[in-house]
Amino acid sequence: MSTPWSHRYAFRTVKIKSSAIRELLKLTQKPEIISFAGGLPAGELFPVERFAEACQKTLMEKSQVALQYGPTEGYAPLREMIAQNLNRYGVAASPENVLLTSGSQQALDLIAKLLINRGDHILTEAPTYLGALQAFNVFGARYVTVPIDNDGIRTDLLEEAVRTGPKFMYLLPNFQNPGGVTMSLERRKELVRTSNHHGIPIIEDDPYGQLRFEGEHQPPLVLLDRQNMSNDPTYQLGNIIYLSTFSKTLAPGLRLGWIVAPPDVIGKLVQLKQSADLHTSTFNQVVAYEVAKDGFIDEHVRTIRRVYRERRDVMLAAMQEFFPKEVTWTRPQGGLFLWVTLPEGMDCDRLFKAAVDQNVAFVPGYCFFPDEADGFRNFRLNFSSSKPDAIREGIRRLSIAIKLQMEETRHPEAALV
Amino acid sequence: MSTPWSHRYAFRTVKIKSSAIRELLKLTQKPEIISFAGGLPAGELFPVERFAEACQKTLMEKSQVALQYGPTEGYAPLREMIAQNLNRYGVAASPENVLLTSGSQQALDLIAKLLINRGDHILTEAPTYLGALQAFNVFGARYVTVPIDNDGIRTDLLEEAVRTGPKFMYLLPNFQNPGGVTMSLERRKELVRTSNHHGIPIIEDDPYGQLRFEGEHQPPLVLLDRQNMSNDPTYQLGNIIYLSTFSKTLAPGLRLGWIVAPPDVIGKLVQLKQSADLHTSTFNQVVAYEVAKDGFIDEHVRTIRRVYRERRDVMLAAMQEFFPKEVTWTRPQGGLFLWVTLPEGMDCDRLFKAAVDQNVAFVPGYCFFPDEADGFRNFRLNFSSSKPDAIREGIRRLSIAIKLQMEETRHPEAALV
Repeated sequence: MSTPWSHRYAFRTVKIKSSAIRELLKLTQKPEIISFAGGLPAGELFPVERFAEACQKTLMEKSQVALQYGPTEGYAPLREMIAQNLNRYGVAASPENVLLTSGSQQALDLIAKLLINRGDHILTEAPTYLGALQAFNVFGARYVTVPIDNDGIRTDLLEEAVRTGPKFMYLLPNFQNPGGVTMSLERRKELVRTSNHHGIPIIEDDPYGQLRFEGEHQPPLVLLDRQNMSNDPTYQLGNIIYLSTFSKTLAPGLRLGWIVAPPDVIGKLVQLKQSADLHTSTFNQVVAYEVAKDGFIDEHVRTIRRVYRERRDVMLAAMQEFFPKEVTWTRPQGGLFLWVTLPEGMDCDRLFKAAVDQNVAFVPGYCFFPDEADGFRNFRLNFSSSKPDAIREGIRRLSIAIKLQMEETRHPEAALV
Repeated sequence: MSTPWSHRYAFRTVKIKSSAIRELLKLTQKPEIISFAGGLPAGELFPVERFAEACQKTLMEKSQVALQYGPTEGYAPLREMIAQNLNRYGVAASPENVLLTSGSQQALDLIAKLLINRGDHILTEAPTYLGALQAFNVFGARYVTVPIDNDGIRTDLLEEAVRTGPKFMYLLPNFQNPGGVTMSLERRKELVRTSNHHGIPIIEDDPYGQLRFEGEHQPPLVLLDRQNMSNDPTYQLGNIIYLSTFSKTLAPGLRLGWIVAPPDVIGKLVQLKQSADLHTSTFNQVVAYEVAKDGFIDEHVRTIRRVYRERRDVMLAAMQEFFPKEVTWTRPQGGLFLWVTLPEGMDCDRLFKAAVDQNVAFVPGYCFFPDEADGFRNFRLNFSSSKPDAIREGIRRLSIAIKLQMEETRHPEAALV
């Protein structure tokens, strides 16, 4: 055989944005670039010493568990810990409701495998998390989207959207990626009502919920859903699958996420997970348990919140100082991202190239919409992974690129000269 | 909503044997049971001290890489190491040919995602690896099977089998799971000829290839394939995807496997892996690299070979001593498993229950066939995870169960009394 595989075999056709985006993000790897593009947590906050102690303890006392094959459901003490943490927010989850996954991304893959048949509509916020679109696209999802504003998803547009009969709704209620906005309590209730009324499940993705800098914690949808079910004290039923992860609170390099769902859903997902990767690394699960336990993770999350809050403040102040007044942006109360809207006629793709010329980077807005025609006046900025001085300097550079582009948009003939 | 999800939603229908098998294997967890059922490597051989050193080094010197998000393709030094190890066997792989996966099981899932459309036929050996059937079933595979004998797949039956137009062939040439047999050089050549002649790709799964106790190493199919292609010094093309893993040579708890394939195949698999779990744990990849490097893994594999060889010998001797002469079995030259054939009229399912009564366990043969009507006169024994005394005692107990069942088969009325 002398022809490439792609010429010989019909590979699964997948609408994948990742190639273009991966190529684009490679441009941001140059050391002179200040990148607001990635979704990286601040590496300098990784609790390295605590990890070192946890690894030693794991290897000295639990090597026969940690290095061996383990149950697909996950390491029992970690399932217990995750259930208990949910109990603190009033969610009556037990370990049987918890499945450990290889990062939250695998949770999305398994859920897509379980629920999506080619051509099914999925309801998402617009914009929404790029990785979810990738996971759903593999299984042939189509989309119906509902825009967000500063209070999260526009529930006034929800009834119309659910008329398409979506298979499920995928939502990020807290410090949304990429929008940075948080769903109000009223809208949360409205969503859960709609979900129950029409029998449309909700996938509640909550990677950032712990990272609130200010304002009041809002109850997760899964809790509001349970409040409708006085006959379900143990979360046997319910309409909501809840996802979270250690990627933003401990370290993404561990690839540890989890799914919380009624036991019959967990049972089906366990079968799919077994065929997908047998189980998530037992070593990482034991180590994460040893790191997180005895309240360490709560203490550590307080540090992360303080540092990210400062970085957000620096970014907001710099944008206020440097950006033209026609540019607007969201003011997140937590998380890692904010979302910028450019004036009419601007194009974030052209701006990206101009920004890279100024040695600064972001993710173009169209990456976050199922319909690639959307999002050309937006981009996402990450404020967690750069230090304050770099944030201020990066925003200054970005403002130069924006002003150049605005000038060019007003006088397009100038670009031809 | 007050009904379970499974009553409300059409979950993906998957022919999954795992539930029944999982239930069955739960019976083998009792401490008094000597289990030859699992595929566990010997935990007491895990290089715990070396892991402890590697973790310290990783955290002290590389924490910003190891705990952070990483590239989907894998940790570059590990890809390089894997390519170099293949070079030792003459396979001209470069790092661009290597994709790290979350265990070999994920390799099977990604390949199934890429290549299998519902209803496609996959050609496998009969029996074959249970986890591969599970991974392929999720995507709606059907099967055409070719029996094995002591020289591996019966290539004299191959031409007829490929007339069904299989999408690919899935094969375990070395110390097959569950058969324990190894494919002869002649059959390897015949297979690769058939693959090239008909343009049917081969997935070569090689988790045990390093664990040869005796006899001559046979060239991997991927090498024989390349020898047809004098114009491809860098493994750009070729008809074979090669899989391996650290699960049997370092520790399965790491969940580290890899795919070796032409770059265009790797490129597509990278996209699918990105949507499946973003990337495999960077922490585990860096740690595994630090453990394996400087020849440590070769030295460690020599220890494993020595210990497993002894255990195989003890098992074979005990079977010779205790089993009725009507029972036959394979004599593996490496790996973890051997395969037992019961006399006409016996049923491994009934035997399993009798064996558990005697406090010994195995995996029934029918678990390893796509067609559940097959394999009722067979079972698989693992010899890697029990110590010599336990192996001898377990085989003695098993022989009692076999003799009781043989008696019952000859005088079925006795079972009714």
